[in-house]
Amino acid sequence: MRYLAKEVIRTAGENTAGGEVEVSGWVHRIRELGGVSFVVLRDRSGVLQIVLSEDLAAAGKLTPESVIRVRGVPALNEKAPGGAELRAVSLEVISRAAPDLPYQVNGDISRTGLETILDNRILSLRNPKIRAIFTVQASIIEAFSAYLRGRDFTEIKTSKIVGSGTEGGTELFEVDYFDRKVYLAQSPQFYKEVMVASGLERVFEAAPAYRAEKHDTPRHLNEYVSLDVEMGFIESEKDLIELEKGLLAHIFDHVGRKNAEELALWNAAVPDPASLAGAPTVPYEEALKIANDEAAAAKKGGSPSAGRIFDINPEAERLICAWAGREHGIELVFVNEFPRRYRPFYTYPLNSGEGGASSLTMSFDALFRGLEITTGGRRQHDYNAFLETLPKFGLKPGDFTGYLSLLKYGCPPHGGFAVGCERLTQKILGLSNVKEASLFPRDRKRVEP
Amino acid sequence: MRYLAKEVIRTAGENTAGGEVEVSGWVHRIRELGGVSFVVLRDRSGVLQIVLSEDLAAAGKLTPESVIRVRGVPALNEKAPGGAELRAVSLEVISRAAPDLPYQVNGDISRTGLETILDNRILSLRNPKIRAIFTVQASIIEAFSAYLRGRDFTEIKTSKIVGSGTEGGTELFEVDYFDRKVYLAQSPQFYKEVMVASGLERVFEAAPAYRAEKHDTPRHLNEYVSLDVEMGFIESEKDLIELEKGLLAHIFDHVGRKNAEELALWNAAVPDPASLAGAPTVPYEEALKIANDEAAAAKKGGSPSAGRIFDINPEAERLICAWAGREHGIELVFVNEFPRRYRPFYTYPLNSGEGGASSLTMSFDALFRGLEITTGGRRQHDYNAFLETLPKFGLKPGDFTGYLSLLKYGCPPHGGFAVGCERLTQKILGLSNVKEASLFPRDRKRVEP
Repeated sequence: MRYLAKEVIRTAGENTAGGEVEVSGWVHRIRELGGVSFVVLRDRSGVLQIVLSEDLAAAGKLTPESVIRVRGVPALNEKAPGGAELRAVSLEVISRAAPDLPYQVNGDISRTGLETILDNRILSLRNPKIRAIFTVQASIIEAFSAYLRGRDFTEIKTSKIVGSGTEGGTELFEVDYFDRKVYLAQSPQFYKEVMVASGLERVFEAAPAYRAEKHDTPRHLNEYVSLDVEMGFIESEKDLIELEKGLLAHIFDHVGRKNAEELALWNAAVPDPASLAGAPTVPYEEALKIANDEAAAAKKGGSPSAGRIFDINPEAERLICAWAGREHGIELVFVNEFPRRYRPFYTYPLNSGEGGASSLTMSFDALFRGLEITTGGRRQHDYNAFLETLPKFGLKPGDFTGYLSLLKYGCPPHGGFAVGCERLTQKILGLSNVKEASLFPRDRKRVEP
Repeated sequence: MRYLAKEVIRTAGENTAGGEVEVSGWVHRIRELGGVSFVVLRDRSGVLQIVLSEDLAAAGKLTPESVIRVRGVPALNEKAPGGAELRAVSLEVISRAAPDLPYQVNGDISRTGLETILDNRILSLRNPKIRAIFTVQASIIEAFSAYLRGRDFTEIKTSKIVGSGTEGGTELFEVDYFDRKVYLAQSPQFYKEVMVASGLERVFEAAPAYRAEKHDTPRHLNEYVSLDVEMGFIESEKDLIELEKGLLAHIFDHVGRKNAEELALWNAAVPDPASLAGAPTVPYEEALKIANDEAAAAKKGGSPSAGRIFDINPEAERLICAWAGREHGIELVFVNEFPRRYRPFYTYPLNSGEGGASSLTMSFDALFRGLEITTGGRRQHDYNAFLETLPKFGLKPGDFTGYLSLLKYGCPPHGGFAVGCERLTQKILGLSNVKEASLFPRDRKRVEP
């Protein structure tokens, strides 16, 4: 039976009878010292020091990244990682790695540029610190799903191939679909709403979404994992903000408990889940004022300023989060009541009497550690109001027959939000670029591996 | 506070003080009887009879599918669904459904053709029996993920946009990706293998997969949800079959417990989880013989026969499952040791000395209730053997640089499988067409809604 590295370390102290165990994994590092070889073996549980005699080492001719199977005797050694080692009795090379390794898996990634890491993705994912990003990401998705299932939400799987774009047709990737053109879905927005109105009422999905945006920034991916939520019978976006606070608190709690090792590798910490209750909700206009006040204070303090801030741009996101960290003890802010011009046409108005571009909406963004991680809001559920809104956005009812039949035949007040999974991962770990948080990121230049 | 229908039914007997509660939901059915209106209200928890006085009914002018809010007094009534009803005190119409409903939501779907159901998908999903399909599907995905997480598998999210097809370039949907052509992924096969070799060792993913197959059959979807599993350090496909047996047993157990009501709507039952251990594994050649023997016996019994069966075609799948049901008490069969010509180039040979088209492979399919629901196998992990195999399939090493760098630098023996989520849903519920098990199915003609 195969032992994992961490099992050897955990039980080495009990091995008073000198029994042998078997481990398997990758050769992470090789160091020779006075005829003896010290091999660090890497498996899914962690790393383990293997001590090879001169004979075994000579026979094995190990290369970094080779996959090996070792039988040996576990023993305590306070100088070894984890405080134990395996003294090898036999060694088998299962898969010999070629010696021309194009990427140093066990290197210090802070000295490696992002392009090099992504160009060598197949090998760079073996680096324990890089791999840790995706262990944390898996925990985020697990906690996201568990929290929502516990509140009567149903997981859905909706099509990513759509006949037309719900947001109005821009920034879509076109697909050759037999004899016609279709598009990759920008979001499951319409389908989430259909499923709320189906009577499921509360749904979630963790699935890819596509944006054919040409710009290449540390904030953008052309394909990302959208953690989508939608629910019926809400009053306003404030119900959604409360839901997201509880959801994020659960995710932070889960990641904090389950991924302490991974967080330590990145010198990162999740916010105290209890602090989420104190995250402020700030109306758009007030958020803009906070950003400008913060910028003015920074300028006074000698920092360079980009001048007056007119919308919640990346600089404003950073300033507002810094303010919240200082004033509320957590770098998480919900900005709500966005003016209509900044939100999709299906957003519900704050004051139903008004419809102008500067009128306000029941919408919100969540900003976390300086980055927008969520957009959400209540949606229009009234058929006639929806019909009246379309022309104001230059849209034709004929392009929204799906929406119209959704709303025409009984639709409850509803709303939802989407959390960018890579952005949340990035901000939990303190990564400098969102691409680091995508296993196989897609940008304008990169579609491989 | 809003009560759910099932909460009213559960607590009606305790309501001796005649207290009022509030419910919200859709008007499922309206029946008038001697001045009183009986409205069946539908919400996410089920249905509830509402009794409306003549005045309330006249003021409400209810139409089917309208969304309403009702305050009333819960009371026992053994003639009402669930044995209780709500005697309305006030009624509010939240969203009035237009009276020209194009699809009768509360109708008997066995009298409605599949095309009608799918053409009216936005409304047909409101039918409780249809909605139940997707409640069961959500449970399948939940149980799939939970079982694997409990065995140290990590969830991954891989790109669905690929530079080239891993299966050799046929049946791919082409995407306009900025200034180049890319494709929708047929499976996460290569990425799963990369993640096994990354050191995660055990990974899973529940995500869309794409096949540009032109045929339109009750077995096929052009976009489906693939429940993918991959693990390292296996000996043969038999390790994978054992894993899948445990996985399916867990899924059946979970669905059986959680979805008793939904199963009852379809007059369906999951197999006894304990019976999974008895599911036979049959080598390909033997499976073919069983199919032909079964066909011959049926012919003798007077059934028409399509003649000799030369491969595991849909007829053979049905015959082999019927045989297993009779002989082993469960209509689940694992067919292994497929000849090389039927399997992808990366499949591991059964006898490493042989490489001809008729030699056997460490591969398997799972057939359940007459339908292939899984394909899997051990993969080639040896760099040199992989290089030698490519030309036999007419493939060029230059098109597989990703695979080659995966295998060249240390890759453990590994394998995996994929369960078709819609097919498993279909067979659990006894649906006649796999499209019924896809929320928004995509076929050659259908890309909307």
